[in-house]
Amino acid sequence: MPHVVILYSGNLEQEADVALLCRRIADAMLTVTDEQGAAVFPPGGIRVLAYPAAHAAIADGGEAGRAAGGNGDYGFMYVNLRMGRGRSDEVKRRAGEAITSAAKACMSPAMERMLMGLTVQVDEGQEVFDSKTSTLHPLFSKARG
Amino acid sequence: MPHVVILYSGNLEQEADVALLCRRIADAMLTVTDEQGAAVFPPGGIRVLAYPAAHAAIADGGEAGRAAGGNGDYGFMYVNLRMGRGRSDEVKRRAGEAITSAAKACMSPAMERMLMGLTVQVDEGQEVFDSKTSTLHPLFSKARG
Amino acid sequence: MPHVVILYSGNLEQEADVALLCRRIADAMLTVTDEQGAAVFPPGGIRVLAYPAAHAAIADGGEAGRAAGGNGDYGFMYVNLRMGRGRSDEVKRRAGEAITSAAKACMSPAMERMLMGLTVQVDEGQEVFDSKTSTLHPLFSKARG
Repeated sequence: MPHVVILYSGNLEQEADVALLCRRIADAMLTVTDEQGAAVFPPGGIRVLAYPAAHAAIADGGEAGRAAGGNGDYGFMYVNLRMGRGRSDEVKRRAGEAITSAAKACMSPAMERMLMGLTVQVDEGQEVFDSKTSTLHPLFSKARG
Repeated sequence: MPHVVILYSGNLEQEADVALLCRRIADAMLTVTDEQGAAVFPPGGIRVLAYPAAHAAIADGGEAGRAAGGNGDYGFMYVNLRMGRGRSDEVKRRAGEAITSAAKACMSPAMERMLMGLTVQVDEGQEVFDSKTSTLHPLFSKARG
Repeated sequence: MPHVVILYSGNLEQEADVALLCRRIADAMLTVTDEQGAAVFPPGGIRVLAYPAAHAAIADGGEAGRAAGGNGDYGFMYVNLRMGRGRSDEVKRRAGEAITSAAKACMSPAMERMLMGLTVQVDEGQEVFDSKTSTLHPLFSKARG
């Protein structure tokens, strides 16, 4: 926690630099602060994973797009942040806005070229069991210490 | 929203036409109506993404299947719809049933050939932040307008 | 239900035997018992699916790791169990602990070699629709009968 999972139709792989998108979203998360100006996400806890789908079906499958003079190819990208419980509404909003801005900046050329949807949602994890082990966190605690 | 994510053991890739399954599920979603007969899902908002797992482990790993005279190969497919909040129980049930019918129709030949499980679940998204951008939705609004 | 989904940065594919990890987690789930000593998870209902990410971004992207003398390569693995509602807190804890132990045992060599995080979380499914079809369950019911 926190982690971002990006699910998207495989045809976007050629339309956008998704590795760069992951980095931009991670960078955006590093900048999110709470009402007191403190960083919301510990650097060692920021993780973004992206998955192109092997198969996809979107909307009507292309009919309306072809009728409108296009090639009927549609895209979809879903960006989901799961964050820990107990943050203020303002912090959730800031996190969501930061990720949305990063995602839109990366995806806007693709969105201009093709018909696609981009959804960003933030979930508060409701886990009933939670275990974290990390050899990465201490690196940043040390750096800060 | 709404979107469907299909997660499945990689061995089903040879047993079923998962691209067709995605399309059939999207088509089924297009037909779901509420109690007043209105379409529940806007065409531009229907998205189905399918992911074969790179690695999987199911049940006892094949022992019981081999003991029963089979090859010990098991399959699993999980179909998950995440839909917006605030729909009636009846609409949720209709959406679930429509997707289940489509999934069963596509997967029944595989289910007869091999030992496998097929689970369909509908979740109501509990997101604390939600941002949607689409160049696809307007295509259908225009078509309807 | 129950099922485990493992999401991880693709660089772990070379660092760990993820197929074995799936099996070990499934085996661990087979051993979980409730307060009365009864098996919690039916054998035919245990499924573990693992997905290496096509793209990932973790923490600061490697700067701190390189500054500490390493190669700047970070890893992340997220193990998520979704189980049915209505289990006791003790059962949820046992399930989480069993999966965590199995995951740590498999991943500890990788965790010693590289900077990485391993998170295990258990969710109680809050589905509003649920449909299960299985040709696998009866195999184990028969075996037990």
